[in-house]
Amino acid sequence: MKKIFSIQNTKIKYLIKIFNKKNNMNIFFVEGIKEFEMAIKGNFTPTKIFICEKIFHKYEMIQSFHSITFLISIKIFKKLAYRDNSSGIIALFKEKKYMNQLKNIKISNQNSSLILILDGIEKPGNIGSMLRIADAVNINIIILCNMKTYVYNSNIIRCSLGSIFTRNIFIEKIESIMYWLQKNKIKIVTTGFYKHKKVMNLYQTKFSHCNNIAIVFGSENKGVSNIWLKKSNKIITIPMFGYIDSLNVSNAMSIIIYEIIRQKNYASLCLFFIYVIYF
Amino acid sequence: MKKIFSIQNTKIKYLIKIFNKKNNMNIFFVEGIKEFEMAIKGNFTPTKIFICEKIFHKYEMIQSFHSITFLISIKIFKKLAYRDNSSGIIALFKEKKYMNQLKNIKISNQNSSLILILDGIEKPGNIGSMLRIADAVNINIIILCNMKTYVYNSNIIRCSLGSIFTRNIFIEKIESIMYWLQKNKIKIVTTGFYKHKKVMNLYQTKFSHCNNIAIVFGSENKGVSNIWLKKSNKIITIPMFGYIDSLNVSNAMSIIIYEIIRQKNYASLCLFFIYVIYF
Repeated sequence: MKKIFSIQNTKIKYLIKIFNKKNNMNIFFVEGIKEFEMAIKGNFTPTKIFICEKIFHKYEMIQSFHSITFLISIKIFKKLAYRDNSSGIIALFKEKKYMNQLKNIKISNQNSSLILILDGIEKPGNIGSMLRIADAVNINIIILCNMKTYVYNSNIIRCSLGSIFTRNIFIEKIESIMYWLQKNKIKIVTTGFYKHKKVMNLYQTKFSHCNNIAIVFGSENKGVSNIWLKKSNKIITIPMFGYIDSLNVSNAMSIIIYEIIRQKNYASLCLFFIYVIYF
Repeated sequence: MKKIFSIQNTKIKYLIKIFNKKNNMNIFFVEGIKEFEMAIKGNFTPTKIFICEKIFHKYEMIQSFHSITFLISIKIFKKLAYRDNSSGIIALFKEKKYMNQLKNIKISNQNSSLILILDGIEKPGNIGSMLRIADAVNINIIILCNMKTYVYNSNIIRCSLGSIFTRNIFIEKIESIMYWLQKNKIKIVTTGFYKHKKVMNLYQTKFSHCNNIAIVFGSENKGVSNIWLKKSNKIITIPMFGYIDSLNVSNAMSIIIYEIIRQKNYASLCLFFIYVIYF
């Protein structure tokens, strides 16, 4: 492994460029052991790895990347690291193709998939948390539209704990998402204000008989846009009993997704018992 | 209303001191219309109100505080405001007593109250989101211990949308919380890792027959401390199916709290039907 101890070194300058998002090289910046591991799990390709000897300990993790690994001083590392607890590793990875890829995905009508659509979510921290929930319940198709931020934004990576790498991410225009949903006969569920005409209480809505569902969440300030409300099969709301009329979008998502999963699991448990009794 | 147009004015200097948290005057800083309204709703007393004429429009809201309201220029306002969307109002409020007050509260055994305990949560944003959920489900007793941050931190106020003012907040030592819980016969529910011996799946746990429950959430990194795990009546875990073994603490809270509310409402619905059938 080569050592770099000057901040003037071209590789470090290149890293700083990436860090400052002044690159057009389809390369992004990953910091932290967990996040690095998740990127590798998600089959992303590292192009350069920078290790701070004084902090980093997991050399077995980077064994196969010997030729692209560089040792840097703690001074340089601290200049580059965004966080305090990034465990001595910073790496550059190649982007994957995530635009206009949705059309290649087919969903069987026999499945019972959950699909997540995030339309115009503004805060990287919220997108990250929502991806972390998606990982928790194994939602594997996540469609982003009206993106306000770079998909591999350091805060998205950090708040998702690297789930951005292990989920299938698609960035699409609303029209192509609508076309794909119709083609694959996927039902649209949106969240709406309790004042909306068609709105139903989450806990009075039955999801167990739906096969494939796409759940749409809109921006923090404006909520889900009208086009989704018009096209949706169900508009649901979370019952609230206090002074405030909305929840943080990632909290709303966690409540809704876990209620859907609970209903679907409960339904399959019932089916299992019917099967046991009758056959 | 008096006008202030110099940043050298003593009132502005005083405001900057509060802003920089260099005060021992039990005064805190509130920014934004919604937050101001919530503080008034929660019976907090404003000591000074600063209005930026060019942005502020809701003069009816501050009519009764004429003598303590000052008009400031947009230049000064922008210097003081933490956010872009604070609607032209910044105010100073008196703190309420929130330490060692829990002993005065009695909970009837006939009630079915939910109590929230936050032990050592580090990020103000998480505390704020959790208070916002507490507002949504009308949890009215929130006990904080091992606080890492000032209770009226601007980020807590903002992320709670002012719920910090309308909920009953207590700051206590663990020992006095334990004593109070035992005295009032309140059951303790904690969240634990799936590896813990006594841990139960959230969806296989029955909450409907418990009267008063205190739910404990621990720090983002370390989770709930051992003392809570030892004393708890139930240790629950949220089922997870992905690569990551934990959720953001406010997301975990929203899932758990809403499941408890769902069960309790479902149970009271059943009781209602039994009542209708038998009487």
